[in-house]
Amino acid sequence: MTNAPARGFTTAEFAARTAKAQAAMGTSGLAGLLLMTEAEVRYFTGFHTLFWQSPTRPWFVFLPASGKPIAIIPEIGADLMRRTWLDDIRTWAAPAPQDDGISLLTDLLLPFAAAGAAIGLMKGHETHLRMPLGDFERLSGNLNGLRWEDATDIVRGLRMVKSEAEIAKLWHICAIGSATFGAVPDFAKVGTPLDDVFRAFRGEALAQGADDVPYLVGGADQGGYSDVISPPSSRPLKSGDILMLDTGATWDGYFCDFDRNWALGSADDTSRQVYEVLWEATEAGIAAAKPGATCRDLFHAMQSVIARFDDTGGDVGRLGHGLGMQLTEWPSHAAWDDTIIAENMVLTIEPSLSYDRGQIMVHEENIVVRPTGAELLTTRAAPELPVI
Amino acid sequence: MTNAPARGFTTAEFAARTAKAQAAMGTSGLAGLLLMTEAEVRYFTGFHTLFWQSPTRPWFVFLPASGKPIAIIPEIGADLMRRTWLDDIRTWAAPAPQDDGISLLTDLLLPFAAAGAAIGLMKGHETHLRMPLGDFERLSGNLNGLRWEDATDIVRGLRMVKSEAEIAKLWHICAIGSATFGAVPDFAKVGTPLDDVFRAFRGEALAQGADDVPYLVGGADQGGYSDVISPPSSRPLKSGDILMLDTGATWDGYFCDFDRNWALGSADDTSRQVYEVLWEATEAGIAAAKPGATCRDLFHAMQSVIARFDDTGGDVGRLGHGLGMQLTEWPSHAAWDDTIIAENMVLTIEPSLSYDRGQIMVHEENIVVRPTGAELLTTRAAPELPVI
Repeated sequence: MTNAPARGFTTAEFAARTAKAQAAMGTSGLAGLLLMTEAEVRYFTGFHTLFWQSPTRPWFVFLPASGKPIAIIPEIGADLMRRTWLDDIRTWAAPAPQDDGISLLTDLLLPFAAAGAAIGLMKGHETHLRMPLGDFERLSGNLNGLRWEDATDIVRGLRMVKSEAEIAKLWHICAIGSATFGAVPDFAKVGTPLDDVFRAFRGEALAQGADDVPYLVGGADQGGYSDVISPPSSRPLKSGDILMLDTGATWDGYFCDFDRNWALGSADDTSRQVYEVLWEATEAGIAAAKPGATCRDLFHAMQSVIARFDDTGGDVGRLGHGLGMQLTEWPSHAAWDDTIIAENMVLTIEPSLSYDRGQIMVHEENIVVRPTGAELLTTRAAPELPVI
Repeated sequence: MTNAPARGFTTAEFAARTAKAQAAMGTSGLAGLLLMTEAEVRYFTGFHTLFWQSPTRPWFVFLPASGKPIAIIPEIGADLMRRTWLDDIRTWAAPAPQDDGISLLTDLLLPFAAAGAAIGLMKGHETHLRMPLGDFERLSGNLNGLRWEDATDIVRGLRMVKSEAEIAKLWHICAIGSATFGAVPDFAKVGTPLDDVFRAFRGEALAQGADDVPYLVGGADQGGYSDVISPPSSRPLKSGDILMLDTGATWDGYFCDFDRNWALGSADDTSRQVYEVLWEATEAGIAAAKPGATCRDLFHAMQSVIARFDDTGGDVGRLGHGLGMQLTEWPSHAAWDDTIIAENMVLTIEPSLSYDRGQIMVHEENIVVRPTGAELLTTRAAPELPVI
């Protein structure tokens, strides 16, 4: 894949993200924001490492009301953090179960506790506490007077709307994903074990320029697959199988997340029909993704097409979501999500339906929302079920 | 890589794990154990999916005092969970921010709250709360009378000692890793950009039979690298570089975690000397890894060799750790860890030292502890710094 954008971001971009967060913190009366999850630490600092795979060490970034973020991190990350735009980097020799950053955090936050200030923390939907709960309780016990407040909405609001530099990375990895899916008929044949298909897919994505393929799921079975989150079996593909592959590949820390479906040998009538309904539902979702619409509108636009085939309703919970630094991000295309779609949101359009004897089919495309509507980041799936 | 062991585990293995946990729960006076992290859910159920990449949905498993575990999970995982040994699978249409499993958990736990029972939860070192903190607070508020107690030690004690079936998987992925490192001189040449080396390494590991390469870090620079957790730059390798690659590749959900070092073109004297000290320190660590020794003993065995070169002490926090379902697991080879090494623990032996102008070098091997001492899972690194 040629024409890769530049890696990383300018200092101006990190400064702008920080300033926006600080403006929202001011409005919410927060004197600071304590962050500890990979995407959030990276979003405000540029600190990018696979070392988060290790659960051993916690990592913290504190956004004060003004000025640059402050890193409170294990010493093993100091060299990498010093290459970011941050100046204030406080480290300890982690792991240290008796004091894994708690003294450093206490020193930093005690003045806020003394002032009875409110400090933001992400406690809401799609967030986790990425530090031991016991340590969080201990830290809170050190900080009498400090009020933890949920700041999920502040970070959510920022991260949902992408910058042009982020969109360029997303465009690039989606193009890599599209090229990889384009090559699937070359290596997924009748007789090929499904785990070999997965292995070949990963290799192809790397060859096309992906940094990594952290997410690859799928299924294949006669007349349709029945689950969409499994690792592959070693069952060889058979004529009459419907094959689905769904990938989250990455480039410079940004994900694509989309899938494709194929019939092996020949396609049965039901599968063809389900495919066409979902293709139309995707069209409806793409058409509805305009600034000012809500996620609920997108959901209903897709669901009304799906209902032509099946009105029992799906149970996967939603028909798409946000996309960026994580495989799935806020918002959700669901009846309960009234988030207003805004320019430069990057979204998946992901209708699915259950049919027959417990099969499911999923379609998925990735889009960026522009002033007049959706722009596809992915090469649109064929309107009819492709046969390999 | 031929002779792959069987995928998955027997029901007997899950039943044995559960029985051991229940025995420890009985001793600790716990009426149940609530688990929500990927490794723990998989350990007790066999539920294995990359879908954990998505932060959107929480997943819960409850171990009662006796009987099989109970799954409380998003409907999207029901099909896959039904293929495990579990019978009681309770689902909801996640995501549902207003009630993401909280009602189901409340129904399950209310009788325990009414009885004033203690329920275990992992709150200790190397654990996270993988659900929104706000939801945990809400759940706790529903359960007046229930006492949450830290059950980290119970799970830690079980997971640190591997079964023969687990060791077979670890042996297999370490062999794949060794074969992959063996091929590095074929694709890491003077002039090759470091990110191309990473891409080729991933492709080679897949070709050797790895399912995935979730972790790959490294560095290369003149006379030594200075950090060990970075993603690769596109800088071409130069003569005089010291190159290090460190990988966590997986097979059937089990990790290898080891590294290798090379000099490009020729090796400078300091790098050669540092390499030899670390090779000797690794030997000392391997020799010390006997049942009955402590992790502190292992640490000192390695550190006393390292001190011949440098007595300032490292700051990476430890010189190795447990290995299995995660890239890093308990215990830690550190002065503060008095865990007693036991038969069938799988460990990394990972001495490192800092030298000269801020460079660092790391060596790493993977072992399984047997009655008479360590057995290597990895093909031992060469005793002298290899030159490509």
